[in-house]
Amino acid sequence: MTEDLLGQLRERLGEYVDLRHAGALLHWDQEVFMPPKGAEARGRQLATLSGLAHRFFTAPETGDLLKALEDRRDSLDPDAAKLVEVASYDYDRATRLPEAFVREFAEEQSKAYHVWVKARKESDFRQFEPNLARIVELNRRKADYMGYEGTPYNALLEDYERGVTAETIAPIFETLAREQRDLVQRITNASQRPRAPWLKRDWSEDAQWAFSIRILEDIGYDMEAGRQDRSVHPFTTAFDVNDVRVTTRLAKDDPFSGLMGSLHEGGHALYEQGYSAKDWRTPLAGPVSLGIHESQSRMWENCVGRSLPFWERYAPVMREYFPEALEGVGAEQIYAAVNTVEPSLIRVEADECTYNLHIILRFEIERALIEGELAVADVPAAWNGKVSDFLGLETPDDARGCLQDIHWSHGAMGYFPTYALGNLYAAQILERILEELPGLWDHVRAGEFQPLLQWLRARIHQQGRRYTAAEMIAEVTGKPPESGPFLRYLAEKYTPLYGLR
Amino acid sequence: MTEDLLGQLRERLGEYVDLRHAGALLHWDQEVFMPPKGAEARGRQLATLSGLAHRFFTAPETGDLLKALEDRRDSLDPDAAKLVEVASYDYDRATRLPEAFVREFAEEQSKAYHVWVKARKESDFRQFEPNLARIVELNRRKADYMGYEGTPYNALLEDYERGVTAETIAPIFETLAREQRDLVQRITNASQRPRAPWLKRDWSEDAQWAFSIRILEDIGYDMEAGRQDRSVHPFTTAFDVNDVRVTTRLAKDDPFSGLMGSLHEGGHALYEQGYSAKDWRTPLAGPVSLGIHESQSRMWENCVGRSLPFWERYAPVMREYFPEALEGVGAEQIYAAVNTVEPSLIRVEADECTYNLHIILRFEIERALIEGELAVADVPAAWNGKVSDFLGLETPDDARGCLQDIHWSHGAMGYFPTYALGNLYAAQILERILEELPGLWDHVRAGEFQPLLQWLRARIHQQGRRYTAAEMIAEVTGKPPESGPFLRYLAEKYTPLYGLR
Repeated sequence: MTEDLLGQLRERLGEYVDLRHAGALLHWDQEVFMPPKGAEARGRQLATLSGLAHRFFTAPETGDLLKALEDRRDSLDPDAAKLVEVASYDYDRATRLPEAFVREFAEEQSKAYHVWVKARKESDFRQFEPNLARIVELNRRKADYMGYEGTPYNALLEDYERGVTAETIAPIFETLAREQRDLVQRITNASQRPRAPWLKRDWSEDAQWAFSIRILEDIGYDMEAGRQDRSVHPFTTAFDVNDVRVTTRLAKDDPFSGLMGSLHEGGHALYEQGYSAKDWRTPLAGPVSLGIHESQSRMWENCVGRSLPFWERYAPVMREYFPEALEGVGAEQIYAAVNTVEPSLIRVEADECTYNLHIILRFEIERALIEGELAVADVPAAWNGKVSDFLGLETPDDARGCLQDIHWSHGAMGYFPTYALGNLYAAQILERILEELPGLWDHVRAGEFQPLLQWLRARIHQQGRRYTAAEMIAEVTGKPPESGPFLRYLAEKYTPLYGLR
Repeated sequence: MTEDLLGQLRERLGEYVDLRHAGALLHWDQEVFMPPKGAEARGRQLATLSGLAHRFFTAPETGDLLKALEDRRDSLDPDAAKLVEVASYDYDRATRLPEAFVREFAEEQSKAYHVWVKARKESDFRQFEPNLARIVELNRRKADYMGYEGTPYNALLEDYERGVTAETIAPIFETLAREQRDLVQRITNASQRPRAPWLKRDWSEDAQWAFSIRILEDIGYDMEAGRQDRSVHPFTTAFDVNDVRVTTRLAKDDPFSGLMGSLHEGGHALYEQGYSAKDWRTPLAGPVSLGIHESQSRMWENCVGRSLPFWERYAPVMREYFPEALEGVGAEQIYAAVNTVEPSLIRVEADECTYNLHIILRFEIERALIEGELAVADVPAAWNGKVSDFLGLETPDDARGCLQDIHWSHGAMGYFPTYALGNLYAAQILERILEELPGLWDHVRAGEFQPLLQWLRARIHQQGRRYTAAEMIAEVTGKPPESGPFLRYLAEKYTPLYGLR
């Protein structure tokens, strides 16, 4: 009887997974290959599919199955018990929002997005202000529906970073803000600055492409279970553990922008290709949180791809792809070039030293908005003040200020912190890895990535959604999320590079 | 009240259209870009999506809406009345098969397909025989569920060519078989045979690709609402009237194989891009039948693309893409090369003179199977006998004989005749066009395809599914389907080319 119920639940969740993956393919195609005139129909198809998937998942049949199995919890094996637990958690969250509210939210998202596109283009926050006000209001109501302890912001955060709260993050971010701002100032004032005159030239896009594929294969990305394409905004998406795709964009004047993008998305993709076979087509075969997901992309992009041992291996390899351009350019020069620090106004262009500062200012602003401590009308002033404080830069217009990101226009609040958490987690995990795999950098220097990948597979990827984000970090590193490892990582890299102290 | 019901019906049918189009995208991706290991999950996703779409469409809510609107038929405008009529027809057919039967059929299809792949590879019909026997049996039961007049084969034909019966087709096919066999014999015995020694070389695939895109754009295919990719088997698919995609395959040793494929799929695509805006996202925005669809591909591939006026225009253009290879090669030579007649064993390689013969033998065999006049065990003998009779060829093995096509392994019977009907319809429509557009060939010679396209748009594409196949041909040409125009078309082309008579 329990087996029968479990079979029914698995089939139901499996169909739900199938529908979500079908929707993901529609999204991927939209960004990668869809002809321009197809946009309108695609929007409807996505809405239909996600509406249907939602109705299917939240139907009483799902709840009845889950309830019946929860009542039989004692007779379930640990995997089945975890499946029921995670699916019940999802079901509970998915059924808390009334359908009318979901529709209202979706309609405002659609309107807000279009207004934001125009407002950003014309660099005029006032156009977007009423929409942002409604987005804030809708997110407050969403928090009330979802329930929370402490600040209502926690209810939003929970969607992206289960188990992590604003109260946990805030002091960590305060330390980071102080220390990173200080580091950036010292770097900006440093007398020693790496220069890379050899970078100023055109870099063949064909060679960039071939080199990025080579790197993806080397780090363990299974090209038989994935592919790389080009898109305006790079992303990773999965339609199955055996079909995980990445996109990148290439810059003619910078061979590292595309490559680091490939490594970043490759890190996300290794995670998605790494779920345990026994969890396939269930909600357990998914990422713990956005922050954990981001920790995997940052691990490969930054910890590995911007390390000296990596370039000791790949400088000669890259020279095979660009024999003329890289003549006489060695590992140290490339290492310095991919670790240039330059405070800038745009988050997505930020380097490792400044990136978190962009995130922290967004976190502080959106938390204040949700808590009613900041009026929507005051967002540009707050934004520009923090950019000046954290980065020492003046914000010349809203387009390069508080209108630069798409997230709020999509209704997403509580999302930004996960980017910074990803950086912290990666550094924290790396410290643990180095304790257990002290030969890591020798492996990297030899182009051997399997030891690192297998560690991540066993400890993180294969666990699927068996832990919350907070539990996973505690389980893997023995500590709660903290700022120390990341700050040590920055100091070790940038002190010698910029001749600090 | 009627408006309200109509709105509900439109929304319901719209969601169904969205789900079907989502499924079509999953199929397209499977053939074009999916990494190999993604196949298993994709199969499940397609099954889930089509099962859900089917359940959604056949739900009692759909039937209730349709019934309520049928009762109010008098208050509906003509378009709404036609929508209700066509949707009711689809609903009626979709609800006739019991779910258990649909599942049984799908399971046998899946098994039969895998057995067929192996049997064809090993060229051994006996392996496939039991599966084919079950496919025949299932199709007989399907016919009983669907209902029919005359032969049960008509119930199967109705799925692909609404309103056309075996009793209509059989005498037409008999005439075709006699006349085409005779023509092929005369061509085979002709003393004059076009030769194209210049064809024997390697043809740049990049240039072939660029030329095919140029031709697609010239004939009016909207590249902003479509795209061409490569696949093993060329096909056309649509996710919306504004997103209609074609695929082709290129042969290094033959520049016309890929090009004619592009023109063929381009013809299908022009049809799908041509539905009336008022019908979008309803079942009215669809093809009348497979035969009518095929008439559009054959119109552009054969009637236009293999005509002398076309090559008078495009020989110089093609020379721009292959300046060296086509030096001194003129329109007449290309015209002769793309109209070479050569009886062969393989349907998909057949030329205009022999193609229908391949179809007629399949029609005769599958009809006899369904009617119980032919035992499954006797299929190879029957096949080989007809190949010898129609084409004067000996069939050396089953792989090049009765195992060559995928259709039966997919459970499809009644599908083949639509290919030949497409050829007939195209010739019949062309005769009508030439009466109304006597300057057609001057337009083609000038590279002006809009007059032809606009004619097809107005008379066929824009009508959507307002007619059955039989009605459409009667409406457009004033006559029932017939063999005369196609036979005249062949005689006019091949008599001079091969110096017959």
